[in-house]
Amino acid sequence: MNKRNPFGAKLNFNTGVVEMIHGAGGKASSQLIDQLFVAAFDNDMLNEHSDQAKITLPEGQVVMATDSHVITPLFFSGGNIGSLAIHGTVNDVSMSGATPLYVSAGFILEEGYPLKDLKLIVESMAEAAREAGVAVVAGDTKVVEKGKADGVFINTTGVGVITNGVDLSVNKIQPGDKVLISGSMGDHGVCIMSKRANIGFESNLESDSASLNWLVSDMLSQVPGIKYMRDPTRGGVSAILNEIAYQCGVGIRLEEDQLPIKEAVRSGCELLGLDPLYVANEGKLIAFCPAEFADQLVDTMRQHPLGKDAAIIGEVIEDENGFVQLQTSFGGSRVVDWINGEQLPRIC
Amino acid sequence: MNKRNPFGAKLNFNTGVVEMIHGAGGKASSQLIDQLFVAAFDNDMLNEHSDQAKITLPEGQVVMATDSHVITPLFFSGGNIGSLAIHGTVNDVSMSGATPLYVSAGFILEEGYPLKDLKLIVESMAEAAREAGVAVVAGDTKVVEKGKADGVFINTTGVGVITNGVDLSVNKIQPGDKVLISGSMGDHGVCIMSKRANIGFESNLESDSASLNWLVSDMLSQVPGIKYMRDPTRGGVSAILNEIAYQCGVGIRLEEDQLPIKEAVRSGCELLGLDPLYVANEGKLIAFCPAEFADQLVDTMRQHPLGKDAAIIGEVIEDENGFVQLQTSFGGSRVVDWINGEQLPRIC
Repeated sequence: MNKRNPFGAKLNFNTGVVEMIHGAGGKASSQLIDQLFVAAFDNDMLNEHSDQAKITLPEGQVVMATDSHVITPLFFSGGNIGSLAIHGTVNDVSMSGATPLYVSAGFILEEGYPLKDLKLIVESMAEAAREAGVAVVAGDTKVVEKGKADGVFINTTGVGVITNGVDLSVNKIQPGDKVLISGSMGDHGVCIMSKRANIGFESNLESDSASLNWLVSDMLSQVPGIKYMRDPTRGGVSAILNEIAYQCGVGIRLEEDQLPIKEAVRSGCELLGLDPLYVANEGKLIAFCPAEFADQLVDTMRQHPLGKDAAIIGEVIEDENGFVQLQTSFGGSRVVDWINGEQLPRIC
Repeated sequence: MNKRNPFGAKLNFNTGVVEMIHGAGGKASSQLIDQLFVAAFDNDMLNEHSDQAKITLPEGQVVMATDSHVITPLFFSGGNIGSLAIHGTVNDVSMSGATPLYVSAGFILEEGYPLKDLKLIVESMAEAAREAGVAVVAGDTKVVEKGKADGVFINTTGVGVITNGVDLSVNKIQPGDKVLISGSMGDHGVCIMSKRANIGFESNLESDSASLNWLVSDMLSQVPGIKYMRDPTRGGVSAILNEIAYQCGVGIRLEEDQLPIKEAVRSGCELLGLDPLYVANEGKLIAFCPAEFADQLVDTMRQHPLGKDAAIIGEVIEDENGFVQLQTSFGGSRVVDWINGEQLPRIC
């Protein structure tokens, strides 16, 4: 057919930059959408160029989660804001026991940002989505003037379905339950902070940023009795355990000896003045289960690559004040309080 | 119960400002969430303090849409970024014929932004959500350093369901179909631009920002044959008609005499050097239907307050080049091309 093609001009992904016009809703916007986003996220729903996507959901409890990502730096060892934006939302959906299925992506771009780097980010995002088995079905791109944003911000919102009747709830947690973690603490936060401080830990420490949905489906299909799961991102293990203890009116006692911490994270934390319990993770989960299933659960987790360093790190105790305590290696005990300062800004 | 309450301290909504710590995932984050977001959006799902929301959907085709909002100024005549963020996503969902049900909200806040203004924005958002009958069920808040964002950016992602078997599709459009608009063009864009240029049109011109879902449900329940709907936001009526014409391989002929344009918009456009066909709307829709139903459709739209100035503005014609033409009042004809420049940055 002899139709005119308003998208004919090719974007320059070598030297081109994001311009205000890419967010104006006209021809340049369509070029960016077609040549970058639709090309990377390739699926029928995006190809329709509609302002909304029609999605098909299996029977079950539908779950929705949203996360905006403002991490700096945008690229880090083990990922970038694109892969992180998928992992973060896939994990939020998965922690409910749901299978994540669809994701929307909202980009806020700063004028002048290199198209080459944006392409790397979007391609990482597309790869992360493929690995997690989710489709990026709806998108939006806005551009703001130079100096009015910081390169790239990405919101992802995920939809999933609990198809197996699993009913996880924080309210099921009770004294005697065991607390498990799927692997080492603080990898993401220390990786980012050391890169920011330029102290060179990146070489031997990667962010743990990863989608946990396949690990979760193994856990739920093989071990009965799992009560609740949560991913310890901003604020680290401490923040989510404090929130849970407060919500449930119980205490949590952690065993310092059992906390999996990589040597690079331990030394990085010492140098940076951080406590691994407060440092963000982006590919770890905390699970609560009755004591009788804890060994089976940790074994199951260890059989998955993302759970190979899983450990039982503590237990739920009676304490109506809702304190989280750490039983130290020397036999002492200290309170692991809520984070107070802004320990790690813009970590995700 | 004698539980400790880590959220005891009240935020100061008179003189307080957004601080980095409000985005750190600890105690201050929880305070902001509890005292501002949960208080305003009040619903059981948010109250659960979970990283994801369980939502209940009726039978039907599920639809998902996302939009990030970066409008400047944040407050304008007829609304603010909060109400706009609900309207925009409600409308994107509604244009498919779906009933919008749930919305997620992702906030990116600039350090130092006044909590007082943030509260106004969030409360407008909550009110807009109530009016549209949608629940804000999932949220996220990030804070970036002063100078790294522009006050407040909001992403909303909406989920809705087409419960009545309606199947709108751009591919159904064919020569002979009529093109309708639900009201006057360009109100939002001219309102924003005149406020930015400080030329004082705000006094007699309000943004049309509004949720169109109730108008849409009247249209779909009362008039058969509606083929496709779209809301002409960024890029205005011109951008979406050009996109549709290109996608369908048809032409569209508009009648200049029939285009509803308010006098304040017309004079504002003259002063600002804008063409109302290219100016954004935030509470208008374009509908396509077979000629035989066009009168009935325009009558139905006019019975709704948001459709009182509805008009049949043109028709679909054969043209494999996909041009949009304007039949002028003087009997001439000109091409209404894709927007080329960045006519109106950050209009939504």
